Amino acid sequence: MKQTSDQLHVLLLNEQTVAAAAEEGEAMYALLRELFPFPRSITGAGLRATVRRLGEVVPLEVTEVPSGTQVFDWTVPDEWSLDEAFIENEHGQRVVDLRDSNLHVVGYSMPVDITLSLAELRPHLHTLPEHPDWVPYRTSYYTRTWGFCLSDRILKVLPDMRYRAVIRSRLGRGSLTLAEHLHRGASDEEVLVFAHDCHPSLANDNLSGLAVAVHLAAWLYQRPTRYSYRFVFAPATIGSITWLAMNEARLARIRHGLVLSVLGSEGSFHYKVSRDGNRTIDRAAWHVLRTEFADARRLDFLPWGYDERQFCSPGIDLPVGRLTRTPNGEFPEYHTSADNPAFVSPAALGEAWLACLKIFEALECDVSYINLSPKGEPQLGRRGLYRSTGGYQDVPERQLALLWVLNQSDGGSSLLDIAERAGLPFAVIARAATDLERVGLLRRAPAHLTEKRS
Amino acid sequence: MKQTSDQLHVLLLNEQTVAAAAEEGEAMYALLRELFPFPRSITGAGLRATVRRLGEVVPLEVTEVPSGTQVFDWTVPDEWSLDEAFIENEHGQRVVDLRDSNLHVVGYSMPVDITLSLAELRPHLHTLPEHPDWVPYRTSYYTRTWGFCLSDRILKVLPDMRYRAVIRSRLGRGSLTLAEHLHRGASDEEVLVFAHDCHPSLANDNLSGLAVAVHLAAWLYQRPTRYSYRFVFAPATIGSITWLAMNEARLARIRHGLVLSVLGSEGSFHYKVSRDGNRTIDRAAWHVLRTEFADARRLDFLPWGYDERQFCSPGIDLPVGRLTRTPNGEFPEYHTSADNPAFVSPAALGEAWLACLKIFEALECDVSYINLSPKGEPQLGRRGLYRSTGGYQDVPERQLALLWVLNQSDGGSSLLDIAERAGLPFAVIARAATDLERVGLLRRAPAHLTEKRS
Amino acid sequence: MKQTSDQLHVLLLNEQTVAAAAEEGEAMYALLRELFPFPRSITGAGLRATVRRLGEVVPLEVTEVPSGTQVFDWTVPDEWSLDEAFIENEHGQRVVDLRDSNLHVVGYSMPVDITLSLAELRPHLHTLPEHPDWVPYRTSYYTRTWGFCLSDRILKVLPDMRYRAVIRSRLGRGSLTLAEHLHRGASDEEVLVFAHDCHPSLANDNLSGLAVAVHLAAWLYQRPTRYSYRFVFAPATIGSITWLAMNEARLARIRHGLVLSVLGSEGSFHYKVSRDGNRTIDRAAWHVLRTEFADARRLDFLPWGYDERQFCSPGIDLPVGRLTRTPNGEFPEYHTSADNPAFVSPAALGEAWLACLKIFEALECDVSYINLSPKGEPQLGRRGLYRSTGGYQDVPERQLALLWVLNQSDGGSSLLDIAERAGLPFAVIARAATDLERVGLLRRAPAHLTEKRS
Repeated sequence: MKQTSDQLHVLLLNEQTVAAAAEEGEAMYALLRELFPFPRSITGAGLRATVRRLGEVVPLEVTEVPSGTQVFDWTVPDEWSLDEAFIENEHGQRVVDLRDSNLHVVGYSMPVDITLSLAELRPHLHTLPEHPDWVPYRTSYYTRTWGFCLSDRILKVLPDMRYRAVIRSRLGRGSLTLAEHLHRGASDEEVLVFAHDCHPSLANDNLSGLAVAVHLAAWLYQRPTRYSYRFVFAPATIGSITWLAMNEARLARIRHGLVLSVLGSEGSFHYKVSRDGNRTIDRAAWHVLRTEFADARRLDFLPWGYDERQFCSPGIDLPVGRLTRTPNGEFPEYHTSADNPAFVSPAALGEAWLACLKIFEALECDVSYINLSPKGEPQLGRRGLYRSTGGYQDVPERQLALLWVLNQSDGGSSLLDIAERAGLPFAVIARAATDLERVGLLRRAPAHLTEKRS
Repeated sequence: MKQTSDQLHVLLLNEQTVAAAAEEGEAMYALLRELFPFPRSITGAGLRATVRRLGEVVPLEVTEVPSGTQVFDWTVPDEWSLDEAFIENEHGQRVVDLRDSNLHVVGYSMPVDITLSLAELRPHLHTLPEHPDWVPYRTSYYTRTWGFCLSDRILKVLPDMRYRAVIRSRLGRGSLTLAEHLHRGASDEEVLVFAHDCHPSLANDNLSGLAVAVHLAAWLYQRPTRYSYRFVFAPATIGSITWLAMNEARLARIRHGLVLSVLGSEGSFHYKVSRDGNRTIDRAAWHVLRTEFADARRLDFLPWGYDERQFCSPGIDLPVGRLTRTPNGEFPEYHTSADNPAFVSPAALGEAWLACLKIFEALECDVSYINLSPKGEPQLGRRGLYRSTGGYQDVPERQLALLWVLNQSDGGSSLLDIAERAGLPFAVIARAATDLERVGLLRRAPAHLTEKRS
Repeated sequence: MKQTSDQLHVLLLNEQTVAAAAEEGEAMYALLRELFPFPRSITGAGLRATVRRLGEVVPLEVTEVPSGTQVFDWTVPDEWSLDEAFIENEHGQRVVDLRDSNLHVVGYSMPVDITLSLAELRPHLHTLPEHPDWVPYRTSYYTRTWGFCLSDRILKVLPDMRYRAVIRSRLGRGSLTLAEHLHRGASDEEVLVFAHDCHPSLANDNLSGLAVAVHLAAWLYQRPTRYSYRFVFAPATIGSITWLAMNEARLARIRHGLVLSVLGSEGSFHYKVSRDGNRTIDRAAWHVLRTEFADARRLDFLPWGYDERQFCSPGIDLPVGRLTRTPNGEFPEYHTSADNPAFVSPAALGEAWLACLKIFEALECDVSYINLSPKGEPQLGRRGLYRSTGGYQDVPERQLALLWVLNQSDGGSSLLDIAERAGLPFAVIARAATDLERVGLLRRAPAHLTEKRS
């Protein structure tokens, strides 16, 4: 389907969108608080309930992939259920109880009901001595064991007596839950947005990513776009691998992608590039962040992190980057009970939502133009695009943007190329191009000139 | 016409040339003082008188382009004349008078003779509140209006009374004046030197550029060179556009180009690269400046500034850079009455003249050689090019230059390539090549190896 | 001959090798002390005795090249012998005597027996006023003269009387001595190791290089390797030129090369790249040094220094870099009597020997693999290569190395490419590849994918 310039301008963000970010932030934060207590894991009821709640924001297509399904080098695991878990002292007092926090039980713990000395119990207890009040988050999906997580301060005061450890869990045939929402644009080419949804009772990692992703989908809903946008919610690692395996034949449609996570805390934005490091998504995301958001940082690719590891594996190799604030493992609250709703804020979520829309805008509007008056500068003054009195020291940013677009629009440079070279925000360059096209100084370049490898 | 090595050496600067810079500086400064009061604009008598005076230094070919001539997207404007202009208070006292400074009248002001209240007059008055004693320079070439420029200190003390504003100007059919001087070298390929000549009573911008350019032309006069050198004097923007439109068929001859402006103040040299950023002129100019002049800076291309904007427009795209000292807009005196002869100095002008000659030298002598003894180092000692006692810690610069030229002269590297890699002044490398050619260790590479894209 | 992966692993350094460095350092230092007093020059008995002693460590093939042989642009000089040299004052006291130090006589001095005033003698005396207690090292191989080197403190107290200067030297037909040791590997492709052996009584320059080179040869002796290793010992400049001229037809076998010198002092390692600057030896050496040795520095190519000047001349242009500690000319003891055994240490020699072996290891093991499970990450946990509990903040270096090797092993990236991108020590990456190959996740890439230009 042929794209017209008019369609592009639909997406260009306006002041209303910027103003909406605050309101969206509040709504995302409310959703995050609501989802926080759900007992999520890589399979099971808590995951399914989470997906159901997200489906109230935008329609979701849910796929249940049966346990035992082979997905590339992996097998979809049995489904895990957990009804109750606690450690009781000799006096029948519960010193650790699942009812206080989902984090207290090591994910995928085997069922157990055993009475042990403290020394015998000790290898099954996980704490964080360097943060004595926090409870760590631990899992053991593929090695059959059991364990509890608790604060080091509690552990330190446990008297040397016998304890009863009870985990009433079940592991059996079931399924892994995938969910996605497709926003159809003018083209079948897709922008993939992925957020992992398996972590229990951790706010920044990754209820923040879920909230931002589903609210982006809601904002795009019924708005015309150039690209189609596919939002995927799945458990980390096994979930993205399962989704890739189930959708391998359709991956070629993905032209750009973003993994969203840890977007609710106060740190500045960190964009981690794709495996290639210089795909259009890498350039667009980094340009938007560095020109419009303070202290943004660009991270080199590393085969460690979130699900970008799978999208960027050599046999998949999609142009997928990752947007976070202070990344996983670099803030002390990561994977602990301190990553709770108090650690994230509506403002941070709203700003992340806006940053993503600005990145989408750069993708949507990254086309090439031809300067129709390329010999010397055209006379902008008689077209109302230049101030009438000359001699001033400075040049306004909008006027400089007009000159950059004219100078570089020889068909070989797209608006993103120009914005990068000019060091000006993409939106300023795109607006200049719109103005110049309106007065007849630019026309869209033929597609074969603009269609570069994304 | 085939170039021989002997011809090249003619241009190599010697100590006499370096010594001449001081004397040339004095001569340029005298010329600048003489031209300062001329009432220049983009057309008219002051411009013509300026060209006449430059023509006394070197022969100039003058072209008058009639008003109304279509030049690319522009039209040559009507010619503007100004006989008298003043503002008189109720007592008949002139509070602003053109006779005091050409800057007092906004360029291309319409004729007016009107009596107004101060409040009504105010929109037609331009001042610089941040520099209360300076008069700004303002123009309005293409929007019909009128105005006066004055010091903010004067404006602040004007009593609230009625004022008579008089501008006796005429705008009518006439012509725009272009002037050029061609120095013929061994080859038809040209080095273009451009300086704008439209600014009235501003010393650094751009009487300094005019003085340096015309004195470079005078120095080259009747000296043999490899390239031809074309010096063009024209008004800013409309002048360079007009010249380009009139000479479009001959532009392919231009292999290298420099726009010269603001060269008389004390700041260090700033070289702004061409649109491509890596043409030979960019490399030669920057190498000369960084290795031989303190604190030189290289500026990225920007479609804002002086006439390089036109030479570097996408439909022209010539390899033209710009040499200035502290550039336009970055010194407070820019486009004010403080840019007067006291702001520039003979020494600064002389040094700029020498810098240009050194850049020309690099262009003239940038050829490739073949090492005729490429296996191991040749024995320089028995050829008198190496000190006879060994064991010292250091290596003299001239000896290192010999080794660099030998090591890199495989036909693929020109002397400029070698000077850049060695980080040594071009002249030191060129002299080493001359010495090695003399003793038979080098010969000139065939032209097809040296003729790279400039 | 086809290389198997098993053969490669033979060379992978183990902890025993690392531990051996200290012992090797002591042995090298003992050898250096033994060789220190030998009266070396670019020809003659001292050079021959040095080669004989090195031949006791590993078998050497010795070639005598007759005086007068044309070698490229040079001629093998006459052989120089020196029996006695001294300066005697009027009282018959020897104020300078060769028996105290080989450095006292300018290398290749002509015979002389003359009595002169101090003023007449002065032009033949070399001192170092900035280091009054040190004796400089000076030579005059190709200009017939004579001279003495002495400490400035001695010179300053010489009374103004007549002195007898005696040098009993002979210059006549003879030969220049070359020596080499070839270690045969699986392939005929060679790694060249060169150390100059002409400097008399200078410890760091270059007995340190000789000691390290010959002990590397001894370590490789009878060990299987992929490459063949050719160790060449020859005088500086004329020696390497002579060796190149005699072996020109065989140079194509050299795939990588290192010049070794000044490796015994305390400064950090300095690797000077080859003429090209980006050959495999340049990348391997620099990667090993920067990831495993503190404060290592990478030096750009410069046609000045040691025998890399000849190997990197344009008609030879071999991929040969140079490994030193603080380089020639940058430590004050260079080419003076202060460069004696007290200036070098067993520890520094041992570390240099180990650094070279690690560079060899990177060359030997730099092959490409194919990830056999490239879609998503393979499940390392069930193969025992991943910790079983998840959720931790950090990732161990060895696990990260596994992920890097998997991510980048698409055939186009060799282990050195991967180590560079990961910023991890080469050995860590190579070990990860070995582990992954063992569990069947990698196989060696076909040779045509791995054989890139070295």
